[in-house]
Amino acid sequence: MSRYVVIGLGKFGSWVAKTLEALGHEVIAIDSDALLVDRHAEFVSRAVEGDGTDPVVLRGAGAAEADAAVVSMGENLAASILATVALRDLGIHSLYVKAAGDAEGRALNALGVTEVIVPEKEAGVRLAHRLGAQEVLDYQPLGSDSSIQEIAVPQAWVGQTLRELAPRVHHGVQVIGVRCALTESVQVPPDPDAPLKDSDSLVVAGADAALAKLAGH
Amino acid sequence: MSRYVVIGLGKFGSWVAKTLEALGHEVIAIDSDALLVDRHAEFVSRAVEGDGTDPVVLRGAGAAEADAAVVSMGENLAASILATVALRDLGIHSLYVKAAGDAEGRALNALGVTEVIVPEKEAGVRLAHRLGAQEVLDYQPLGSDSSIQEIAVPQAWVGQTLRELAPRVHHGVQVIGVRCALTESVQVPPDPDAPLKDSDSLVVAGADAALAKLAGH
Repeated sequence: MSRYVVIGLGKFGSWVAKTLEALGHEVIAIDSDALLVDRHAEFVSRAVEGDGTDPVVLRGAGAAEADAAVVSMGENLAASILATVALRDLGIHSLYVKAAGDAEGRALNALGVTEVIVPEKEAGVRLAHRLGAQEVLDYQPLGSDSSIQEIAVPQAWVGQTLRELAPRVHHGVQVIGVRCALTESVQVPPDPDAPLKDSDSLVVAGADAALAKLAGH
Repeated sequence: MSRYVVIGLGKFGSWVAKTLEALGHEVIAIDSDALLVDRHAEFVSRAVEGDGTDPVVLRGAGAAEADAAVVSMGENLAASILATVALRDLGIHSLYVKAAGDAEGRALNALGVTEVIVPEKEAGVRLAHRLGAQEVLDYQPLGSDSSIQEIAVPQAWVGQTLRELAPRVHHGVQVIGVRCALTESVQVPPDPDAPLKDSDSLVVAGADAALAKLAGH
């Protein structure tokens, strides 16, 4: 179990705090809005009302002993910067900070934070990749030139099994899972001896070029 | 090449539009804010100033011929609903709508949209999983009880090859890629005959329970 401090309980901070607590960790959540603090009291280990940019508030809440901090102070860049600096002064070096956009992200990166998160950018780019790559239902980059994608079963593969097809040997891609359209369930790892159906889709990993070839574009 | 219409050029809509255009598609972007429309004129096929909830504006912009629509009208639920209904009336059935939160998402789902996206939730849950699962550097859900995660090489595996270890047979997981800490590159698919190093990390797919066992927690 680790201890996390989450500053700011807007939507992003709230989901981070609730999910970390659900994963079995200790979460200290701080917000200046009493209503938001009350709403989170039952979901997190400790919900504290106060100014998350104030070192005294942070220290009093137990933030100095946190393994990592998430700063999610909405559109307020100045507050995000002050909280980040205060947390670093407390000795926390693992700092994840939400930014409103790329310009704000550059300012926060200049402070040396661990990672800047721009939720609207992350979700927007992911959706566009899912929509825009023909047949591809989902997209997850893996390094610079490979990814995990979900594609429809290539027409020529229907009725054959993964053992017969040997996608890794013949196409340089690995089939990680098979999603059944009827049950909406994903079989991971896939059964190598089950014939592929027209309605199935495949979760595959490989170089982008190999995946594009497979998806037929 | 497909044609997409994006209603609303705030941060989320802007990233969707720019990314789809960069992927080689035709994007019609509509917003009532002239400044936002001007800013996107050079990035998208067609940037239109107008009320994205108005069927006449949508038809005039060419939205009726779009393969899919993305509605990203900020926090304005009523506008999102009106635009969604207008697009459906134009015959577009592939509708992706941004929502401010879960309550708004339920209202939009009741309209029968293809998918509701809550960027702050998506990014928040992803960050929490990355932070909160020990040793796990990244996390991608696959269906309800399996996922793709990045984990450190288990100590007992160091010096052995994937062919010797046969993780699929012995642990029910598939190693998709190996990330080298020195070069920060990910090898996909991994070389089955390269001995694993202490400093490597593995991208693995499998049932959550099998992955948790592997990560030693």
